[in-house]
Amino acid sequence: MQSGNESKVYEEDLESHVKHLEKGLFQLARSLRKIRVGGEATPTYATGAGFWELVLLKHRHSMRSSEIASSLAIDISTVSRQIKVLEHAGLVKKEPDSNDARAAIISLTKKGEEIVDQLIKKREDTVRRALEGWSVEDRECLIRLLDRLVVGLDSDEN
Amino acid sequence: MQSGNESKVYEEDLESHVKHLEKGLFQLARSLRKIRVGGEATPTYATGAGFWELVLLKHRHSMRSSEIASSLAIDISTVSRQIKVLEHAGLVKKEPDSNDARAAIISLTKKGEEIVDQLIKKREDTVRRALEGWSVEDRECLIRLLDRLVVGLDSDEN
Repeated sequence: MQSGNESKVYEEDLESHVKHLEKGLFQLARSLRKIRVGGEATPTYATGAGFWELVLLKHRHSMRSSEIASSLAIDISTVSRQIKVLEHAGLVKKEPDSNDARAAIISLTKKGEEIVDQLIKKREDTVRRALEGWSVEDRECLIRLLDRLVVGLDSDEN
Repeated sequence: MQSGNESKVYEEDLESHVKHLEKGLFQLARSLRKIRVGGEATPTYATGAGFWELVLLKHRHSMRSSEIASSLAIDISTVSRQIKVLEHAGLVKKEPDSNDARAAIISLTKKGEEIVDQLIKKREDTVRRALEGWSVEDRECLIRLLDRLVVGLDSDEN
């Protein structure tokens, strides 16, 4: 009996944790949106979906449109349109893909690098202020568990 | 001397934590995007920005366009356009605001409620799978620290 009860309590805990976490992740995503929109007049590439392409290219250096699309779960026509806007603004450049004549390799220009660095610095400043007063242990714990959650979410196939 | 050194180590820790967390939050936001896009053919209101309005209305029941815009940090013309799409799809309804003849109160229809419940259930299922094998302590710790981070981010004024 006791182990049955314990397992039931565990399940109830799990359901309340799942609900709480799903709501918490929505609120977090909303809070993160506000960082990139910011208070001052913000260039469009920092408010819209172009933001994702820019930061992704910063992390990965150079990618094909098809790789960007699958990594961001955006359809390729949307990626192409956004890349065109970023290219027009001088933030990304296209080079021929030596392995595929129809494809192009996309990377940040020097100006693009500078803009992404500014966007990331702004996010880091906000995160630094949000962490004010936290113990080292709590900061380490959050980082460890967030990384683990991302691995779990990304390995999910359903 | 020693306390000076200790404080320097603490500062270096903080900077590495801030950088790690900023990157982790980007990856998390990307993973969360994939949940709502999903594998099967997804209706547009679940992939685009309409998703935010739907979930927000679920949490808050009824809101003015201006309240939705400030809560999501989206400009009001974009909110109005998205609300029109959701209204056309029968997911939200507008009612006159008795306090302001020019404004309208927006809320979910029964169909809208059902769609949001499905979207949230899908996210909860993904979160539940991602939490598989976690101890109760780790789950509680993540929830507590995420909530605290959201409070810190939302109270930030810069």
